[in-house]
Amino acid sequence: MSEKRQVYFLSDRTGITAETLGNSLLSQFDDIEFERTTLPFINTLDKARSTVAWIGRVANATQPPIIFSTTVNEEIRAVLRTVEGVFMDPFDTWLPNLEKAFGLTSLHVEGRAHGMPDRNRYESRIDAMNFSLMHDDGQTAAGLARADVVLVAPSRCGKTPTCLYMALQHGLFCANYPLIEEDLESVSLPEALKQHRGKLYGLICDLDRLHQIRSERRPGSRYASIPQCRFELAQAQALFKRHGIPYINTSNSSIEEIAAHIMQDKNLRRYTF
Amino acid sequence: MSEKRQVYFLSDRTGITAETLGNSLLSQFDDIEFERTTLPFINTLDKARSTVAWIGRVANATQPPIIFSTTVNEEIRAVLRTVEGVFMDPFDTWLPNLEKAFGLTSLHVEGRAHGMPDRNRYESRIDAMNFSLMHDDGQTAAGLARADVVLVAPSRCGKTPTCLYMALQHGLFCANYPLIEEDLESVSLPEALKQHRGKLYGLICDLDRLHQIRSERRPGSRYASIPQCRFELAQAQALFKRHGIPYINTSNSSIEEIAAHIMQDKNLRRYTF
Repeated sequence: MSEKRQVYFLSDRTGITAETLGNSLLSQFDDIEFERTTLPFINTLDKARSTVAWIGRVANATQPPIIFSTTVNEEIRAVLRTVEGVFMDPFDTWLPNLEKAFGLTSLHVEGRAHGMPDRNRYESRIDAMNFSLMHDDGQTAAGLARADVVLVAPSRCGKTPTCLYMALQHGLFCANYPLIEEDLESVSLPEALKQHRGKLYGLICDLDRLHQIRSERRPGSRYASIPQCRFELAQAQALFKRHGIPYINTSNSSIEEIAAHIMQDKNLRRYTF
Repeated sequence: MSEKRQVYFLSDRTGITAETLGNSLLSQFDDIEFERTTLPFINTLDKARSTVAWIGRVANATQPPIIFSTTVNEEIRAVLRTVEGVFMDPFDTWLPNLEKAFGLTSLHVEGRAHGMPDRNRYESRIDAMNFSLMHDDGQTAAGLARADVVLVAPSRCGKTPTCLYMALQHGLFCANYPLIEEDLESVSLPEALKQHRGKLYGLICDLDRLHQIRSERRPGSRYASIPQCRFELAQAQALFKRHGIPYINTSNSSIEEIAAHIMQDKNLRRYTF
């Protein structure tokens, strides 16, 4: 067995950009096992020096480590760049392009991307999250007028994770509403949703998958049975088609992908936090 | 008023990496207003060509647009690269470095970073989210043995958003538990938490901030009053110190920053989704 390849995500702040960027690139290599270490908050020269020294000590002698770094302070970056390994920093590479394009010098202030440079925008995001928790699973229809989008689906098709993700990651006010037997039998929208039809988005999933997920929750129940799952999925699709509601099958998509489709289809402004 | 500078995030998949990277860089420029557009799922040559044509039509004549692109398919990228503007694509720039370092050709398969290449890992993340929802605000102590971390704090110091964020973004099993008057008066841990002391992490916030947030929820109440908030914050800190619980003031930190500190202090393995 070959040794794992060491990967370091270095940042003067949270490390999120370095991880997102680096993991995106590394995901293109299938046959290598990576040992990932994130070292956030490297915001002084001393910390930068001890980081370089530490990586030098623990590094594999034969395979240089891979370094994804995001540091806005040039002095700190100059220290980190001395690490022995493959060093990649988008601030290093692209900030000069942008400074040139804008005819401006950049701020070189850390914590701008995932900190709180704009408190109003940040609070609206927390409001979005609280809204989504309050409007999970049709708990109340009171605030639906405020919703950016309302997900409708049979139970366990992915409404809750998708809603919370869109709230947390994109600051959207997302409600979700279950389709119950009565709605499905009559192929009609729940009364509370009729006036919000333009905001609705449907979720379905594959029969096997729904059966499996429901069986984990309530093994052997009618709720989890194949005929019941088949009935609910077929009726939900009929309902979406009858009422002109766009929908997506969530079985083979991550919540990031589901959310990206919904935001694109509904033309929702998207912030990314 | 000057025109907004146009920014496009192009991706063969969700656009998350392009947005995260691009917004990180743009956050270093304070005096420019940006008009951001995300165009995800550009996964055919036809879509790439029509994207380039569309940007050419809508682009501001005097200021070339800024393009952050993340496409793994070289043919698609070659088309996108013809757009008139400042073009940045980390796959373009860094994949060759990595291929050289690894002595391997990369996969060039889209949807690896924010899709579902590994279903088990993805499901464990959804489990983490469900766990965090189930263990919000001390609803149950039953599953605390499974928790990676348990946040403790007075009401409205940020427990719920931080927990959900760590679950969704990092796949951690996070519970949270409120400190109630009785705990605070006696400076003692809730009974259910005593056996999990190694997992505890405390949150506090500034007095003004707590008073403000609670006042929005219950204006004029004792709960929101300055003396009550002051009492709870002082006692919570005394409790954290007495029981050796690390803690953080959340007032001026985003949930990304709070989470990064907690994961670092508790030495939690962190995935990033």
